[in-house]
Amino acid sequence: MEFTVSQIASLLGGEIKGNSNASINMLGKIQEAKQGQISFLSNPKYESFVYETQASAVIVNKDFVPKKEVSTALVFVEDAYSSFTILLEEYYKFISFQKVGVEQPSFLGENSSVGSEIYRGAFSYIGNNVKVGNNVKIYPHSYIGDDCTIGDNSIIQSGARLYSGTFIGNFCVIHSGVVLGSAGFGFAPQEDGSYKTIPQMGNVVVGNNVDIGSNTVIDCATFHGDSTKIGNGVKLDNLIQIAHNVSIGDNTVIAAQTGISGSTSIGKNGVIGGQVGIAGHLTFGDKTSIGAQAGVGKSKPNGNIKLMGSPAFELLAYHKSYAIFKNLPDLSSRLKQLEEKVLNLPTFQESK
Amino acid sequence: MEFTVSQIASLLGGEIKGNSNASINMLGKIQEAKQGQISFLSNPKYESFVYETQASAVIVNKDFVPKKEVSTALVFVEDAYSSFTILLEEYYKFISFQKVGVEQPSFLGENSSVGSEIYRGAFSYIGNNVKVGNNVKIYPHSYIGDDCTIGDNSIIQSGARLYSGTFIGNFCVIHSGVVLGSAGFGFAPQEDGSYKTIPQMGNVVVGNNVDIGSNTVIDCATFHGDSTKIGNGVKLDNLIQIAHNVSIGDNTVIAAQTGISGSTSIGKNGVIGGQVGIAGHLTFGDKTSIGAQAGVGKSKPNGNIKLMGSPAFELLAYHKSYAIFKNLPDLSSRLKQLEEKVLNLPTFQESK
Amino acid sequence: MEFTVSQIASLLGGEIKGNSNASINMLGKIQEAKQGQISFLSNPKYESFVYETQASAVIVNKDFVPKKEVSTALVFVEDAYSSFTILLEEYYKFISFQKVGVEQPSFLGENSSVGSEIYRGAFSYIGNNVKVGNNVKIYPHSYIGDDCTIGDNSIIQSGARLYSGTFIGNFCVIHSGVVLGSAGFGFAPQEDGSYKTIPQMGNVVVGNNVDIGSNTVIDCATFHGDSTKIGNGVKLDNLIQIAHNVSIGDNTVIAAQTGISGSTSIGKNGVIGGQVGIAGHLTFGDKTSIGAQAGVGKSKPNGNIKLMGSPAFELLAYHKSYAIFKNLPDLSSRLKQLEEKVLNLPTFQESK
Repeated sequence: MEFTVSQIASLLGGEIKGNSNASINMLGKIQEAKQGQISFLSNPKYESFVYETQASAVIVNKDFVPKKEVSTALVFVEDAYSSFTILLEEYYKFISFQKVGVEQPSFLGENSSVGSEIYRGAFSYIGNNVKVGNNVKIYPHSYIGDDCTIGDNSIIQSGARLYSGTFIGNFCVIHSGVVLGSAGFGFAPQEDGSYKTIPQMGNVVVGNNVDIGSNTVIDCATFHGDSTKIGNGVKLDNLIQIAHNVSIGDNTVIAAQTGISGSTSIGKNGVIGGQVGIAGHLTFGDKTSIGAQAGVGKSKPNGNIKLMGSPAFELLAYHKSYAIFKNLPDLSSRLKQLEEKVLNLPTFQESK
Repeated sequence: MEFTVSQIASLLGGEIKGNSNASINMLGKIQEAKQGQISFLSNPKYESFVYETQASAVIVNKDFVPKKEVSTALVFVEDAYSSFTILLEEYYKFISFQKVGVEQPSFLGENSSVGSEIYRGAFSYIGNNVKVGNNVKIYPHSYIGDDCTIGDNSIIQSGARLYSGTFIGNFCVIHSGVVLGSAGFGFAPQEDGSYKTIPQMGNVVVGNNVDIGSNTVIDCATFHGDSTKIGNGVKLDNLIQIAHNVSIGDNTVIAAQTGISGSTSIGKNGVIGGQVGIAGHLTFGDKTSIGAQAGVGKSKPNGNIKLMGSPAFELLAYHKSYAIFKNLPDLSSRLKQLEEKVLNLPTFQESK
Repeated sequence: MEFTVSQIASLLGGEIKGNSNASINMLGKIQEAKQGQISFLSNPKYESFVYETQASAVIVNKDFVPKKEVSTALVFVEDAYSSFTILLEEYYKFISFQKVGVEQPSFLGENSSVGSEIYRGAFSYIGNNVKVGNNVKIYPHSYIGDDCTIGDNSIIQSGARLYSGTFIGNFCVIHSGVVLGSAGFGFAPQEDGSYKTIPQMGNVVVGNNVDIGSNTVIDCATFHGDSTKIGNGVKLDNLIQIAHNVSIGDNTVIAAQTGISGSTSIGKNGVIGGQVGIAGHLTFGDKTSIGAQAGVGKSKPNGNIKLMGSPAFELLAYHKSYAIFKNLPDLSSRLKQLEEKVLNLPTFQESK
């Protein structure tokens, strides 16, 4: 990326004071930015840096009035912070999608099609009957099993693995080591104490704008025709376990190392902390909030609830109980004292 | 797979009423099945679907008497549900083992042998001195280090990794991202606060009929000649951690994200929940049951025990304590009230 | 490896009694060692084995006086145990670093350089502008993204993945399935309930002598120029989650399945148990000790502290509270009895 200050100002709808031809190839924090970088000033407490910065340009709010001489180019906009964010996103998109072409050796099975502007890294594997959309980036060592579908503008990072029949929407990012569609944990106990595998023949369906963090695992549904479902806009952190037949509603976010057991359904706009465990066959409504490390064993279908503890109950109640738990030694000795006092009461001794 | 109804009836030892030549290529639920599919009716509450289904055949119990006209072929058997299960398993085996042959490029080291009916996916790696049995399916990107052994009819899914010397029995399924035989976590503290690596030179030995879920890790034993041992029929879910020198008895099942520390031994027929942590150098007998998220710090060598909590103790006792934990604010205020009452007792005040 | 007893004695500065030309190719425990192996005797309770062993040589303390005839060669040293440890380490280094050369197919991008004595396994991928030092071992299916640096004598096991810009020091071991530098979990909530990705553009920097266990994930820092930092001598077990912008001080060890949230800083010489969860934006001093399964929500910047529980507090206090928690049913019934007694007191009834 290499732009002039004037090109960037034009993108942001801003006005320039200073060298509009200076060339910009990187973003930086105002305290650290160097020549060739563009930065921003939003919080007044960083104002002093604008007079010292080596950045080639700084984005400022349109009401900013310098108190000293400024050597960097200034770009005046409505909101400096959000303008910088726009630049950051554009730059990020640019570097995320810049790889194009096919590195060799790579594998493409029969009856599979890939869209335009695709990247297929070396040692990537695409099985048979796979449909890959436009502008999809498939990094080295990725495995796309037979009969998978990947929508436009999605990124499959190195070593992500899609078992047969997995469906991924548009604008998704599947990070390294993610496994989608492996066999759910279903085994029927036999009389001799052994277990028989229950065939797991469904698939995983991932909506649009979904991010799935590294080494997270999502198992396929049990029955052919059924799916483990990840809604639109869902954000999953690293090392999460999603069991067979789970359904996660739109825009729910889940932090790292959480596990959700089979057939449980989570509503929309949920916020689930890290290392949470949720039992199977439960239902949670929209806007369910679950604190880190909670162990949830009961359905809360109405949503709008905050849970904590293992087994989990209502967050505030948990904190009240836990506050007393921390003082249990005190409570216990007070009870003992009281017992002694009561036993030693003259009237009590008489009344025995 | 494409069979006639009569072929399927013959496999199940059932009798046909209807079109015995209809062709079947898929299994389906009676509510959703389409032409070409076979379904089953076991629970009477689904009976109405048998009169409406588009399935080409439905397996029913031999005492089933239709109350209306039925257009699908009926296959009468002893037990419709278990007959359907048999079909499901046969179909699952068929699709699981259908890949045969060697995709290129793939890597086969020196002095390594593979059996008949093998599948070696593109980019799979087999090191030196490896022995692979018959009907083994090694998916793309799998890594089989030097001196490994894999028994007959085992499946190594895409991107599973076997360090040198790993032994796997017959009829095992090792899912994507599983790591077997990586170095155990052994470090000797030095006087300067740093740690020296303790060489980990043993291996991992996996019995027959073992399933290991995606991204689970099993470390090798410390000493050359020793093994971390996974017994026959063990079922491990996803993202489990098994440390060096652990031993897990036959037919024990462990749910996702559980971790077992070094040198701990678990007996046969255990049931261990998800996100459980077990400390090192402990011994557990047969039929050990541990609730989800428990943290277990003491041996229970006699088996037949149910544990819960962190640190874990007996399940029922835990639930009793936890029930009171939830009401601690009430208990605490009752204690306070009582203290005040006793202090305000006239006799008590006199007796001071 | 094949040495004579006299070569080994010379390495250890020991004196030989017996056949100094016997050839040694393996280490073994004295109870199990066979011909061609060398063992050691340190603990007197194993002395009887020295008269029976088939080992070709046994290392003994210099004050050892055999009580019977010994057929194996004896190597007398200052400290038999530590001498054996030295041999074990030498042997381990030898087998760890013995692979040399480039297996095909493997991928090497543009402007990338590799040092001498390198091993590049089949299907390993090295992107553009990568610098790899001397005696580095890159196993099959490893992914080294663009602009990465790997120091001398480091081992990248099969299927480890380094996103662009990752830096690894000398003498590190990165195990299978490790992901370094994936995008941190940063999403800005939007008014419609959806989330916008916050670009994650920093990297991961790993010091010297660091071991990272299988399937552990370390996310990159958010800002370009910032790093998630792993200090020298840090030992990370398997399946650990380290979020963006975390910093871990030198010689801190962390057990399996622990998760550390974004921007948290851990001091030097810490010891963190398994399945611990640590919230974001916290600071912990040197010598921080955290018990297994703890959930830590508050900074402890002064170090030298032991924490336990969820939310965590001081270890001893936790154990005291937990001891009473286990007896809560007893405490609760005692309170109830006391309430009844006090209510039934004659004086109390009068005073109402």
